Amino acid sequence: MSKVTVDYTDYFSGMIKRMREDGLLMVTSSADGKPNVMTIGWGTVGILWSLPVFVVLVRPTRYTYSRLEEVDEFTVNVPSKELAKAVLHCGTVSGRDNDKFKDMGFTAVQGKMVKAPIIEECIMHYECRVVHENDVIPEALEKTIINDAYPQGDFHRIYYGQILATYADENALQKLKS
Amino acid sequence: MSKVTVDYTDYFSGMIKRMREDGLLMVTSSADGKPNVMTIGWGTVGILWSLPVFVVLVRPTRYTYSRLEEVDEFTVNVPSKELAKAVLHCGTVSGRDNDKFKDMGFTAVQGKMVKAPIIEECIMHYECRVVHENDVIPEALEKTIINDAYPQGDFHRIYYGQILATYADENALQKLKS
Repeated sequence: MSKVTVDYTDYFSGMIKRMREDGLLMVTSSADGKPNVMTIGWGTVGILWSLPVFVVLVRPTRYTYSRLEEVDEFTVNVPSKELAKAVLHCGTVSGRDNDKFKDMGFTAVQGKMVKAPIIEECIMHYECRVVHENDVIPEALEKTIINDAYPQGDFHRIYYGQILATYADENALQKLKS
Repeated sequence: MSKVTVDYTDYFSGMIKRMREDGLLMVTSSADGKPNVMTIGWGTVGILWSLPVFVVLVRPTRYTYSRLEEVDEFTVNVPSKELAKAVLHCGTVSGRDNDKFKDMGFTAVQGKMVKAPIIEECIMHYECRVVHENDVIPEALEKTIINDAYPQGDFHRIYYGQILATYADENALQKLKS
């Protein structure tokens, strides 16, 4: 499938719908180039410090967290509905013990601007470089959210990724709508 | 102009374009119901903690900051290009010394879900309630951003607003494109 450059604001409704329904696939790289993939259900897109950004949340207990400390770059990949099982798998097993790229038959294609690869089988891709990180502060968080999202008290680190490149399948709009 | 309910992901490209070009108008309310408006050039939209959110940045030196400590609700209003001068004005004078609603001839219409009003003359409106706040951490921020955005060292507080209602002019798409 040939990929074309798009604006980072394109296909926003479709991307959010996929995030809400199954999740998106966030890919990191270790220093020696081994990719790992994690499912994310939460994130925001917009402008911060005059830069286009994709903001993602990662719990400190996650393998992805330790990898981001190593290489502060990531890609966000928007899967089609057909990949729902793979997305679920990537959200339930850890990359510490599993090669999820291999398990899922995902093709890692070198990022254009970052060390982390994209997943070729996905519809749309954002390449990001972390320009800021801070933490969810329990004392400043709505009580119902603490109960619903943090029963284990493992509050997220928030990563602010400057979007360096965005591209998608040529028929992305159609695929996102299906 | 009659307003219709829209999805919070609708018109995203147009909203971001207006934010980048002139800025959006963020409205807060004091405890006694007096509205104030501030221009924002930075913000993100998406899903956090399974909630639709509009994330905005406010410097602690701003009048809006003290007001959010009073009433933790706000609206974000997307102005047309015709309002460019008003948006500039709202970004350069403080509500401490000026009634910007009156100065600009803005019509404050009561929010449906929050105490802060919307600006009727704008194209699109998000009503938000703060569910979390944290701060930009200088030590974890890209050096070039510190130099460009914080020469005075007044690092932003980040407000995470759960979007409770989104609505727009019936011809919003056309107005955002013009």
